[in-house]
Amino acid sequence: MQRYFYKQPLATGMTVELDAAVQKHAVQVLRMQAGGQFELADSEAHAYVVSITNVKPLTVTVGADITKPVELPLAVTIVCGIAKAQKAELVTQKATELGVSRIIFANSQWGTARWQPSKADRKLERLQLIARGAAEQSHRNVVPTVEFMANLTDAAQLQADQLLVAYEESAKEGEAAQLLQSVRAARHDLVVVFGPEGGIAPEELAQLTAAGYKAAGLGPRILRTETAPLYLLSAVSALTELGKDE
Amino acid sequence: MQRYFYKQPLATGMTVELDAAVQKHAVQVLRMQAGGQFELADSEAHAYVVSITNVKPLTVTVGADITKPVELPLAVTIVCGIAKAQKAELVTQKATELGVSRIIFANSQWGTARWQPSKADRKLERLQLIARGAAEQSHRNVVPTVEFMANLTDAAQLQADQLLVAYEESAKEGEAAQLLQSVRAARHDLVVVFGPEGGIAPEELAQLTAAGYKAAGLGPRILRTETAPLYLLSAVSALTELGKDE
Repeated sequence: MQRYFYKQPLATGMTVELDAAVQKHAVQVLRMQAGGQFELADSEAHAYVVSITNVKPLTVTVGADITKPVELPLAVTIVCGIAKAQKAELVTQKATELGVSRIIFANSQWGTARWQPSKADRKLERLQLIARGAAEQSHRNVVPTVEFMANLTDAAQLQADQLLVAYEESAKEGEAAQLLQSVRAARHDLVVVFGPEGGIAPEELAQLTAAGYKAAGLGPRILRTETAPLYLLSAVSALTELGKDE
Repeated sequence: MQRYFYKQPLATGMTVELDAAVQKHAVQVLRMQAGGQFELADSEAHAYVVSITNVKPLTVTVGADITKPVELPLAVTIVCGIAKAQKAELVTQKATELGVSRIIFANSQWGTARWQPSKADRKLERLQLIARGAAEQSHRNVVPTVEFMANLTDAAQLQADQLLVAYEESAKEGEAAQLLQSVRAARHDLVVVFGPEGGIAPEELAQLTAAGYKAAGLGPRILRTETAPLYLLSAVSALTELGKDE
């Protein structure tokens, strides 16, 4: 069933009016009619089945709570060195499907592309829409936030149970245990910094490690900058979500 | 260091001439000269440092064996329902980075796109080049093969220690342990079938399960058809490669 998001808390029995973007997609694109149903996830990460009572404006009655535990057990923030436009879109869409909580794109010393801070808002607006679409499609309970950081090393200010910086040299040296250790040690949240295509500069790495970041390899193969966060999120899922039924 | 592939076995001390594609990239694109070095992986999954003795034709002397264990401990075959062109390219590139052994694209009942068998060879040729480029870039020791299957259910003929079919309904029902169990049980190889965007038809699923395939969820979120194999390969890596240093 189609899922949308709503910016306030919901409860069974409420009647609410949806915004123009949802109205357009549900009524014009999917041709839903009065009596039709879809899923609506609210600002508290609860999801409900809703029934359409009116199509213009699009109005629904909130039915049963159908919330399922589809969010990663760890809230993962990824900080990504800026890559070219299409790659930022790919990372945003795929990381959302794979359960990310927060995506931060950051200018960095060796990056092959940069965002002018004055243009960041427009880029973020577009990426936030992509995140929303991907969250709807993958039936997430929350939409990840997409943010901009003027410098990759501003990540030194971030707080979390575990702070990691993905470092290719660690992978080359065969270091394979840090990621596993950090995922096991993190109780609530994890921040992982990924360099741009050009790599992380030694000064940047030094500043991050001085702030408590640990360098971690992501397996023995060298991953492209846009593939690394997708590996990380899948690995966190595999290590925390897959054994639950046993 | 740049890596290329060579179709015969190599050994330290040999002198070999490389094909036109490597010559073009190394000499024209990267402007390498006599005395320059690069890495060459051979048909036996061994990698060597080589030194250029002549640029036209591109001739090298084979130096030290620098083979590292960068291949996944399990040989993973992915069978993917055909998606639109760009998605097949994305899957080929990313799956290669993430360690796949063999990629098979297959027409299926509910697929939104199909390959005409007469045109499959040309498509495979292009995808095989993408796999080669990605294997060079990620410093793999082997280039995965890219193949075509006229019907997804022909996967019933494949042999491996463990046979899985990624099934969205399993994910929805909260089934999370089959993938973990199969990765643990597989000694050498694993085949995983992924439906197309339209999903796997019940008859297809029945034929595969009759042939020994087990339905497996890939975590609790619903993944797009091109994201699912990337999750699978990352999960196999996380479950088999990350704890090695401990």
